[in-house]
Amino acid sequence: MKLYSFFRSGTSHRLRIALNLKGLSPDYIPVDLRVDEQAQAPFKAVNPQGLVPALTLDSGETLIQSPAIIEWLEERYPTPALLPTGAEARAHVRALAAIVGCDIHPINNRRILQTLRRQFGADEAAINAWCGTWISAGFDAIEALLAQDQTRGSFCYGNAPTLADVYLIPQVESARRFGVDLGRWPLISAVDAACSALPAFAQAAPLAQPDAAS
Amino acid sequence: MKLYSFFRSGTSHRLRIALNLKGLSPDYIPVDLRVDEQAQAPFKAVNPQGLVPALTLDSGETLIQSPAIIEWLEERYPTPALLPTGAEARAHVRALAAIVGCDIHPINNRRILQTLRRQFGADEAAINAWCGTWISAGFDAIEALLAQDQTRGSFCYGNAPTLADVYLIPQVESARRFGVDLGRWPLISAVDAACSALPAFAQAAPLAQPDAAS
Repeated sequence: MKLYSFFRSGTSHRLRIALNLKGLSPDYIPVDLRVDEQAQAPFKAVNPQGLVPALTLDSGETLIQSPAIIEWLEERYPTPALLPTGAEARAHVRALAAIVGCDIHPINNRRILQTLRRQFGADEAAINAWCGTWISAGFDAIEALLAQDQTRGSFCYGNAPTLADVYLIPQVESARRFGVDLGRWPLISAVDAACSALPAFAQAAPLAQPDAAS
Repeated sequence: MKLYSFFRSGTSHRLRIALNLKGLSPDYIPVDLRVDEQAQAPFKAVNPQGLVPALTLDSGETLIQSPAIIEWLEERYPTPALLPTGAEARAHVRALAAIVGCDIHPINNRRILQTLRRQFGADEAAINAWCGTWISAGFDAIEALLAQDQTRGSFCYGNAPTLADVYLIPQVESARRFGVDLGRWPLISAVDAACSALPAFAQAAPLAQPDAAS
């Protein structure tokens, strides 16, 4: 398998965590978003949408969109499970993931911030305020849901990492980069600490990637 | 079951389609986003995130986040299936859905546009340009993926509605509202026509909801 990834992309980061948790090590193909490599013909032949990550299987087929690829991983490589067994518990874990995947990350990613700068003349303070707004709203919701769950251990759900952690940790990393003070969310901070101690998370971190130094 | 919904919310719309396709008719509880009912205490007791849709089960448990609820529906009510059987085909359908669910809808929804107006003084022309940018980018990708699929019939995948159609049709509705010319995407337009002819889609439309007239 080949993983098309950019070290600082949050969606690439979450897919790297999921791959590591499943014990998979695809070849790492860096796509440099800083020079818009994702929008050029060679990569658009891989993914017509021109976004990372993408995962090319040994069959030659390419999967795109991290939520779809991660669900595929769960179906093809069910152990260790990243979703619990009961349908309502699975919906709970997927909801925590979707708060990040739909309501935080898409609004703060690179192409959106570029457009805010270009279309509205946003400066760095305005960009940080914008990102802080959506990260705070989403983290408030996640913190409330974590607080309601009396049965969980160190992670977002249960006693082992799930999709919820796979999505959350890259968003925590991004929040730090945008100068958001995480002290307001002690439960999220504790989950971040628990995950960061695991090799699958540590080895997926942006600065641990081959393209981080380039 | 109780469905908390706002007639014009795209995520409520997609969940209504999925419920209709599964033959389910939960009680309809309108949440009026025009007066910020979603952010007030009674609804936040239902969903701490303060967003529609939410689905309260007969057990009293509430599910949130439309992507999580729709996957739950697929698990609890597998017939008719809204995902194909093969893992790679499922990933393809989920990717089409995620292009809408992650890369178009979240950037154009009500709370984002309110913030653009407030933080950056965006006027209606700027709002429409913003929405047009993200709708066009996402629809270009979906159109390219539909064009690559030589085996599909009238819908996004195969010969019956899937998650991809469930997500796409509300976004087409939203595109029309923002004045986006759909002529550029003939395959998407044809899928929209095929879906709109089905009662499950027609009955889920914003103007067919009880709160549309209020």
